[in-house]
Amino acid sequence: MNRQELVNLIKEKQSYLCIGLDTDLHKIPRHLLSYPDPIFAFNKAIIDATKDLCVSYKINTAFYECMGIRGWESLQRTVEYIPSGLFTIADAKRGDIGNTSTQYAKTFFETYKFDAVTVAPYMGRDSVLPFLSFHEKWTIMLGLTSNEGNSDFQMQQMGGEYLYEKVLKAGMTWGTPDNLMFVIGATNDPAQLAHIRKLVPDHFFLVPGVGAQGGSLQEISANAMNKDCGLLVNASRSIIYAGNGEDFAQDARAAAQELQREMVEYLEAAFADI
Amino acid sequence: MNRQELVNLIKEKQSYLCIGLDTDLHKIPRHLLSYPDPIFAFNKAIIDATKDLCVSYKINTAFYECMGIRGWESLQRTVEYIPSGLFTIADAKRGDIGNTSTQYAKTFFETYKFDAVTVAPYMGRDSVLPFLSFHEKWTIMLGLTSNEGNSDFQMQQMGGEYLYEKVLKAGMTWGTPDNLMFVIGATNDPAQLAHIRKLVPDHFFLVPGVGAQGGSLQEISANAMNKDCGLLVNASRSIIYAGNGEDFAQDARAAAQELQREMVEYLEAAFADI
Repeated sequence: MNRQELVNLIKEKQSYLCIGLDTDLHKIPRHLLSYPDPIFAFNKAIIDATKDLCVSYKINTAFYECMGIRGWESLQRTVEYIPSGLFTIADAKRGDIGNTSTQYAKTFFETYKFDAVTVAPYMGRDSVLPFLSFHEKWTIMLGLTSNEGNSDFQMQQMGGEYLYEKVLKAGMTWGTPDNLMFVIGATNDPAQLAHIRKLVPDHFFLVPGVGAQGGSLQEISANAMNKDCGLLVNASRSIIYAGNGEDFAQDARAAAQELQREMVEYLEAAFADI
Repeated sequence: MNRQELVNLIKEKQSYLCIGLDTDLHKIPRHLLSYPDPIFAFNKAIIDATKDLCVSYKINTAFYECMGIRGWESLQRTVEYIPSGLFTIADAKRGDIGNTSTQYAKTFFETYKFDAVTVAPYMGRDSVLPFLSFHEKWTIMLGLTSNEGNSDFQMQQMGGEYLYEKVLKAGMTWGTPDNLMFVIGATNDPAQLAHIRKLVPDHFFLVPGVGAQGGSLQEISANAMNKDCGLLVNASRSIIYAGNGEDFAQDARAAAQELQREMVEYLEAAFADI
């Protein structure tokens, strides 16, 4: 999916919601455990119940990998089940030297046909560039995450700027707003979100941390939107585990709808023409 | 495998060689392509031919992941085929927020039963600590890699030290020499290797970059050994693709033997008692 298609999708659906399928066998409703592929049965129900409300699904690969080959089968079924026209993200945080990064890029862009994959920047340009060379595919590089450990390196000063700022600036020289996004955590403070948007005016941000992790959709939207919206806001646990009974998918829908309705307000405030 | 067992293994085999199974369907001898699992057939032959010469095998997961479920099947067969008593490394370079890192740790330590996994440090302590909590398992954190892109962030100054130095120092406060190693690239200059060993006297280093990438075994050994050897030196392509005919495994053995014989010299020079 290219940038214009993504922007159109956001405008049509009045949503910049990404739903994170961090699906954990220990957390899904018990009645699904009798299904041949409980993880896929859960994801299928969640997708059916929420696909009109979101523009993207993000699959956290760790939750599938830990189940071995069976987990990869669930992942593959899930990504194939997501309706075409929705933006699919492999949240895999890969990154290695060039030849190996190319193999990772092939994994997610070709073998599983995701639109995007998250990438860790520590090894520098030759670990990121191979991902950027795939046509109409997206690299989503870690920028400033909002976990406790962001203070260890990302928020350390490096020649008058933070490491995360150096990472964002370097990324902007490697990719373009048409093939590179950044992960910017939702629970960073509003002034910092505004500062980051000023530093990176055009790229999309993938923003995790709303919902269970406590980030505010209002603050993100007020401080980090750009002229194309420029945001994919992810919620995982607060949506997919909103309920735990037979009606879990309807509970997930209600949780997604609440966020999407809030998004309509912020989009209307930002774009008179929407 | 615990540290003492690893040190004993190195002394017994007079080797600190790690062989990297970066197995690529496009590079293995053509006659293997008729096997039901060509990747495993190749790895099995390499392991049979080299297992007395090395102490460790490192599986670069990217080369398996890109083949989808079939690739994970090859990976699983391979890791199960490696003789017990050898040190197994999943070169996966994972790292995410705490709960997700726990899933990755389970993937490699429990589902596939590796002894060690490589981890990227960018997200900080809560992305690394979950890996360190597994008993008699090893986390191998990226320190200073030797790819071109190490200049982008790792070799940037941060408050009077390089980022990679900060990463090493932080790692030493999170893990111990009994559960944490660092990746230190072989092609960094000798003075730098000596400097890193001074900074990190006790931890093992996993050193990729010997062979095809041009690192010198002599320089690494002279500058970065410690009292327990403290090195696992990896060669991948220069060993596994040493030959390309019916006798490829014997060619691989010869390439591994050349490195191992050199290691005997360096071990003898370093340890009178070996």
